Amino acid sequence: MRHALALARRGLGNTWPNPAVGCVILRGGVVVGRGWTQPGGRPHAEVMALTQAGPAAQGATAYVTLEPCAHHGKTPPCAEALARAGIARVVSALTDPDPRVTGRGHAILRAAGIEVTEGVCEAEARELQRGFLTRVVQGRPMLTLKLASSFDGRIATQSGESQWITGPEARRHVHALRLTHDAVMVGGGTARADRPALNVRGFGAVRQPVRIVVSGGALPDLPVEDADHGPLWQVSGTPAAFMAELAARGLTRVLCEGGGELAASLLRAGLVDQLVGYTAGLALGAEGRPAIGALGLEYLADAPRFRLVETRRIGLDLMHRWLRA
Amino acid sequence: MRHALALARRGLGNTWPNPAVGCVILRGGVVVGRGWTQPGGRPHAEVMALTQAGPAAQGATAYVTLEPCAHHGKTPPCAEALARAGIARVVSALTDPDPRVTGRGHAILRAAGIEVTEGVCEAEARELQRGFLTRVVQGRPMLTLKLASSFDGRIATQSGESQWITGPEARRHVHALRLTHDAVMVGGGTARADRPALNVRGFGAVRQPVRIVVSGGALPDLPVEDADHGPLWQVSGTPAAFMAELAARGLTRVLCEGGGELAASLLRAGLVDQLVGYTAGLALGAEGRPAIGALGLEYLADAPRFRLVETRRIGLDLMHRWLRA
Repeated sequence: MRHALALARRGLGNTWPNPAVGCVILRGGVVVGRGWTQPGGRPHAEVMALTQAGPAAQGATAYVTLEPCAHHGKTPPCAEALARAGIARVVSALTDPDPRVTGRGHAILRAAGIEVTEGVCEAEARELQRGFLTRVVQGRPMLTLKLASSFDGRIATQSGESQWITGPEARRHVHALRLTHDAVMVGGGTARADRPALNVRGFGAVRQPVRIVVSGGALPDLPVEDADHGPLWQVSGTPAAFMAELAARGLTRVLCEGGGELAASLLRAGLVDQLVGYTAGLALGAEGRPAIGALGLEYLADAPRFRLVETRRIGLDLMHRWLRA
Repeated sequence: MRHALALARRGLGNTWPNPAVGCVILRGGVVVGRGWTQPGGRPHAEVMALTQAGPAAQGATAYVTLEPCAHHGKTPPCAEALARAGIARVVSALTDPDPRVTGRGHAILRAAGIEVTEGVCEAEARELQRGFLTRVVQGRPMLTLKLASSFDGRIATQSGESQWITGPEARRHVHALRLTHDAVMVGGGTARADRPALNVRGFGAVRQPVRIVVSGGALPDLPVEDADHGPLWQVSGTPAAFMAELAARGLTRVLCEGGGELAASLLRAGLVDQLVGYTAGLALGAEGRPAIGALGLEYLADAPRFRLVETRRIGLDLMHRWLRA
């Protein structure tokens, strides 16, 4: 299952509106097929692994990171494909909360005489599928907030100079982070001030993330959509409203890269699931621009809280990752 | 020598105005004496180790983390004591920059027919003795700045609520940090607002650090000096001036615990050698009180810079330690 989870991870940021699933087929202790959801969400992981296994799937065990789909969408259901291929046993990590599937994938398998084991590595699978699960269960994409700041929490000097607070290694890490998200989002002020490219650079040809600007006003000239730049979407309204709209358009994982006002409005609305901080070894002082705008907090007890899950030195900077507490 | 350095570390915060030295005496591969500078700075490490070794010192090797002293102060010179005890070889980490000693300790040893090896583990010894070296060479104590803040660099809500941003484990770590410093320093505003105890709690009976309040004005009622509270000193003037005064009074390691204005003035003056951050998993927003006051920076290139040397999870918080770059 850990192998299947590692395969699934390859699809993060690439498979929306579908979940990023991994599948490993074993026969007699030998891996005969491996698959993961392909860019754009098709083919599904199971179909890729079954195709690779061919006749070796007969009597084999399939490990899947999410319950196989049961509905006829743009592809026939994977549960039926597994049964047709003669798979003897399916081990799955997670029941699909999608109302078109939930439990029915496992039921189809059992009805076909396949032995089914559920809930293996469920916590890891839940973490990996957090974007998909948040979209299906809460009707909004999972949101990661990135903060690259001085150690006193500033993202620019008083005069607005911000390039570069963190080093090249941390900036490269941000591009890798963009790669695992469906979309990169900034506020209108940041878009107008910095005209950011909001694309993934330095990782070869990739499916570029959607670029989202949150603004009710006019946007500056930003690059048109091409091989190096994803689609450009403008949204506005309350955070809850535009996040629902983004989920309806299929997004599962959104990375917000500022500015401070947008970050504050998302935190205030309780919409931030993950926080990735890059802290640089310099102080900018109280007149520097804050990483997070006003939250209107009176008491510490009301502050949005996160728990530390990872910390790493990246180049000269400190990366720290937190999940909603 | 690593053993001697570990012994020396026991004295940090305890030995001012003297350096915290460690000494290990080996004869035939067996440790026959161990010593470290005792609270208040006497006896010296060498004398303690020689006393322990007794006649076994004859023909033995002594490892010392700093060149043995050569001047008659309140105790006779350690270099002479080592020679008198019949030590055959001395391995030292660092030449003492104190003008009363520098090189003369090693010279006394060599004149007595002792084989001397210098510069072993010099970098580690230099790091350990940074407080003493800074006092002797620069005429000021080494300064550690502690910042306990939200991940957006705030130390209190708008209303001033600050207890507690970090958790009990991080606060205990701060007490351990105080223990390795000669003095704990705060600004007048913090002293008046919080009436902090500025002592070490939870580590049994210890030599309490000096309490320093930087303020030209009247101080609030603070606890009088007793077994649980170190001497209370009030200083004022420019950071360079009061730091020189503190060195003249014998301090080698000072821990500044805020507030933001004092922290900013020390950073602006280039007097911060070490930074210890405790970052908590909560956001307080732009109206929260900043950990570091105004620095008056226009350009990023002018920002004071530090390099990351240690990072650790402490309870629910993230500890990160930086040294002046």
